[in-house]
Amino acid sequence: MITLHPIGIVRGSRHAAEDDAWDAEVAHVELDSRFGPDALLGLDGFSHVEVIFHFHRADPARAEHGARHPRGNSAWPRVGIFAQRGKDRPNHLGSTICRVLRLDGTRLHLAGLDAIDGTPVLDIKPWMQGFAPRGAVHEPAWAGALMESYW
Amino acid sequence: MITLHPIGIVRGSRHAAEDDAWDAEVAHVELDSRFGPDALLGLDGFSHVEVIFHFHRADPARAEHGARHPRGNSAWPRVGIFAQRGKDRPNHLGSTICRVLRLDGTRLHLAGLDAIDGTPVLDIKPWMQGFAPRGAVHEPAWAGALMESYW
Repeated sequence: MITLHPIGIVRGSRHAAEDDAWDAEVAHVELDSRFGPDALLGLDGFSHVEVIFHFHRADPARAEHGARHPRGNSAWPRVGIFAQRGKDRPNHLGSTICRVLRLDGTRLHLAGLDAIDGTPVLDIKPWMQGFAPRGAVHEPAWAGALMESYW
Repeated sequence: MITLHPIGIVRGSRHAAEDDAWDAEVAHVELDSRFGPDALLGLDGFSHVEVIFHFHRADPARAEHGARHPRGNSAWPRVGIFAQRGKDRPNHLGSTICRVLRLDGTRLHLAGLDAIDGTPVLDIKPWMQGFAPRGAVHEPAWAGALMESYW
């Protein structure tokens, strides 16, 4: 087992776990008191960051270990939990690439952070173009349909 | 504190933590015995996946909480630990987007997995184009220089 200590918390305008329309929200990550502004130094030189967080409101008893229809929608194929990004997954980790708006001490203001207020943050990494997908990118049609109203 | 249970392990050709030339390696993720092939069902419909793993060989005592020069290279600016992607970070999480080569039962063969043999895997997510960075992407020059020999 691996024990992690959240590095901070999401402060945002959404308080309930809902799937869509995240661009209507504002959010920042507030680092905890172990950290000073130094921990974020230079992050405003990057356009985007990757935020890894914990779906803390997800019910462990509902975690899927096999396959299911994404969002329970039977119009989409039944796929493995590791072939979808929903919250009811082993370890309940979320990961999202957000646009950096500004730094303010130990607060990092972001656009496109799809996590509710109070979400524990486990890591922040700069988005480097060297880590972007390499080679041709494709996905099944249902993935595009699922994301249609997401932002 | 948040306790995670690895979902599987990296089996790969690199056994020592070194920074560069990862494309010379082959690797797969082997899911643990709680999972069957169903957990990966449909993942071969995606060109890429995101793998979240634990830098298990990193020394917790060396975790940086402030700022440092990436890779200790003073030719590059001193930046916060959350403005770089090195292993000596709080929580020791790694996250990499890899190309899917093939599925084989509970084994997922990947290209571009920069994790050594034995690395605990915490999550696998499909790479959806809807989660790609939105808006103009930029990064400081040192980030490009650091990645020059990485793959």
